[in-house]
Amino acid sequence: MGEKIRIIIVGGGFGGLNAAKVLCNKSSKIEVLLIDRRNHHLFQPLLYQVATGALNPADIAIPIRSILSKCKNIKVFLGNVLDIDLNNKKVITDFDEFSYDYLILACGATHSYFNHDEWEEYAPGLKSLEEATEIRRRIFLAYELAERENDPLKQKELLTFVIVGGGPTGVELAGAIGEISRYTLSKDFRNINPGRTRIILIEAGPRILPSFSPELSEYAARELEKLGVTIWTNTYVTEVGNGYVKAGDEIIRAKTIIWAAGVQPSSLNQKLNVPKDKTGRIIVEPDLSIKNYPEVFVIGDQANFSYTKDGKPLPGIAPVAIQQGKHAAKNILREIQGKERKAFIYLDKGFMATIGRMDAILQMHNIHLKGFLAWFLWVFVHILYLIGFKNKIIVLIQWAWSFFTFRRGARLIRSKIWKTREHESLILKSSQKIKNKARKQYEGKRIRKKNK
Amino acid sequence: MGEKIRIIIVGGGFGGLNAAKVLCNKSSKIEVLLIDRRNHHLFQPLLYQVATGALNPADIAIPIRSILSKCKNIKVFLGNVLDIDLNNKKVITDFDEFSYDYLILACGATHSYFNHDEWEEYAPGLKSLEEATEIRRRIFLAYELAERENDPLKQKELLTFVIVGGGPTGVELAGAIGEISRYTLSKDFRNINPGRTRIILIEAGPRILPSFSPELSEYAARELEKLGVTIWTNTYVTEVGNGYVKAGDEIIRAKTIIWAAGVQPSSLNQKLNVPKDKTGRIIVEPDLSIKNYPEVFVIGDQANFSYTKDGKPLPGIAPVAIQQGKHAAKNILREIQGKERKAFIYLDKGFMATIGRMDAILQMHNIHLKGFLAWFLWVFVHILYLIGFKNKIIVLIQWAWSFFTFRRGARLIRSKIWKTREHESLILKSSQKIKNKARKQYEGKRIRKKNK
Repeated sequence: MGEKIRIIIVGGGFGGLNAAKVLCNKSSKIEVLLIDRRNHHLFQPLLYQVATGALNPADIAIPIRSILSKCKNIKVFLGNVLDIDLNNKKVITDFDEFSYDYLILACGATHSYFNHDEWEEYAPGLKSLEEATEIRRRIFLAYELAERENDPLKQKELLTFVIVGGGPTGVELAGAIGEISRYTLSKDFRNINPGRTRIILIEAGPRILPSFSPELSEYAARELEKLGVTIWTNTYVTEVGNGYVKAGDEIIRAKTIIWAAGVQPSSLNQKLNVPKDKTGRIIVEPDLSIKNYPEVFVIGDQANFSYTKDGKPLPGIAPVAIQQGKHAAKNILREIQGKERKAFIYLDKGFMATIGRMDAILQMHNIHLKGFLAWFLWVFVHILYLIGFKNKIIVLIQWAWSFFTFRRGARLIRSKIWKTREHESLILKSSQKIKNKARKQYEGKRIRKKNK
Repeated sequence: MGEKIRIIIVGGGFGGLNAAKVLCNKSSKIEVLLIDRRNHHLFQPLLYQVATGALNPADIAIPIRSILSKCKNIKVFLGNVLDIDLNNKKVITDFDEFSYDYLILACGATHSYFNHDEWEEYAPGLKSLEEATEIRRRIFLAYELAERENDPLKQKELLTFVIVGGGPTGVELAGAIGEISRYTLSKDFRNINPGRTRIILIEAGPRILPSFSPELSEYAARELEKLGVTIWTNTYVTEVGNGYVKAGDEIIRAKTIIWAAGVQPSSLNQKLNVPKDKTGRIIVEPDLSIKNYPEVFVIGDQANFSYTKDGKPLPGIAPVAIQQGKHAAKNILREIQGKERKAFIYLDKGFMATIGRMDAILQMHNIHLKGFLAWFLWVFVHILYLIGFKNKIIVLIQWAWSFFTFRRGARLIRSKIWKTREHESLILKSSQKIKNKARKQYEGKRIRKKNK
């Protein structure tokens, strides 16, 4: 029967999870270890709905180990991956280190503030549930504070929302805030008129949603304007601070600023001495492996795959990660069975973005849709891909309820921060301190090993 | 038409909200102001289900202003009440001060650590959504850390849960953790057996659930034991620390400790120089007002109402707060219409506590129920009283799904803590710093006024 083949997957997002599913109970020879710093898989395309109070965090997040509960050959560990020792085939985490025969890196991407990380506290981005609930807190708290504010200038500042970045996330957030202000909150306040909320969407390029056709992009802009969103294109943000955004010599006063502009791959990439593109993504071979490290695959937002018709790298969207995750796992299975690896070919499923109530745009090859039909397909596709039978039903009900009542079910402001000595160290966000400590321990071990 | 009559309600819990509903659009002469430090009304009886991952926070919380949206004569403000100036009829908040003609105090209760507030960080209590999600995080994180732990002693410490307090909250938490360990998580782990989780319920008195009859209390104890819960009665906790609980000369090592033992009324009571009982509750007159301050009513957990058959004060449960809230508001309306106030009479609706799957106890006058029928009535009553049409449906679906699959829908571990300069000051939990600052400003104003 021979020794077991150990496959490590780092990341339980769309890419990693789909790779794991392909390897699930496939062969008793294969042992899979999936490591993620969260306990849940997150359905990111609907994250903006959590940030705007339409859905609950748990509606779009499921424990990874619960999804893979029937896969007896897969272990799931919660933890941070600190480094990869490519030459010795080892994954170093904050709690242990693990050897692998094959490695699939699916760590995804995070925000980029273009070397201005100090902007983050004033303008959080939208990548995790924690960020989504923080943005939700800021949006709804702004209205509460405006209601009790007597100074009209301060009131205006509280009722101004700036979204930086005109991609799908920025558009969806702006549209949702437009709906909240014009419909959801319209009757709930006595001292302010939520309908007078200023929503400003800032885009550095000449038009929003540049991945869509100019016609669809223009349609989206006009629809957003109907919801009260002001769109500023060709505008570079030069500074973000406490209650203001600067763009050139213009200043806007806004208490709530949301960052939807830049994306950079997982910080793990910086540790790896392999070919990378300008934005830091690892350049992969046609079979999705790293050059000179055929046992290591990189997929999804963390990778640059440019073997496409037009030579442009594939975009950082869910369908790419899903297809690459499956493909990488299948290539491993092929090799184990003595077969040849196959090159990855992306099956383009197009793009979608929702703008508001019964309104979306969709682009798939030559098919361009807008308005109700696009929105209907958007709902259909998102419900279809949402994992978990119960979540599908509950999300459908929440949507139906919001649709008919114009209300939002999860308008919570939660604020208490737990600061506990013991539990602070348990916080799983990769804090530099923990990293350094583990790093030192690891390097200590290495030196000791060398000395032997 | 004369001047408006201003009624201020402090607190949007069961008491305050029901008072507000009675006053809703009743008369154009009445102007109501409801102040709460949260934006949501919380259905506290189901809070333990959030803490154990069965329900989402938003399932049991609704924005107060959304519930009262149609009441044109009611304003809702988010803020902290710092003090009441009973003689000048003023409510002092952290953002402004307000005069009243009538005042209804419905601030509820919080935990009591019996002069050991330093225990809170190791043993959080369960009164707010923040605490519920923190407890949820600790419970599910303990399993994750145990799964990746190699040291069997540390593993045992992680898989030990201690609940201090054998009242309904303690019993419901212990039962839910029993179900999680024995059913929900049974197939999700590879290195640990969640079924070997130790759950210890500590009670200072001779039996758990002392408000129920000895037979029902004994039944509950036996049912909890079937779920793997160990019950220690006559046990006083003498110390709680990082990973341990001391009771006399016994020590238990446990990473997760939950406090369900003591309750004390809102800290606002300490500021008021009026008759109070030993635990700090304000002693109210038969009409629910404070002696010598007939325009001030105190209701729910904050009050001691002892005009009962047996002379014992009414318990701190939802039905008491609901009935008192309605009664206080009606007494105000009666007085405005030139009628006599009425004395409050509590309509006893009995007690309920759920133990586990299809298992609860119920006591109402001479009716004592246990098992499935009690559980069925428990579900019925809780769905009936849960506010909001959508929440009712969604909670029912979550329960049905959990019931048939043995799973839990909201097993999220969320960890990121936002620390931002600006938003830290917005945190609405009554921090001593903000209080002192506002207090000083207020006292400064007073002195200036006096000097004029």
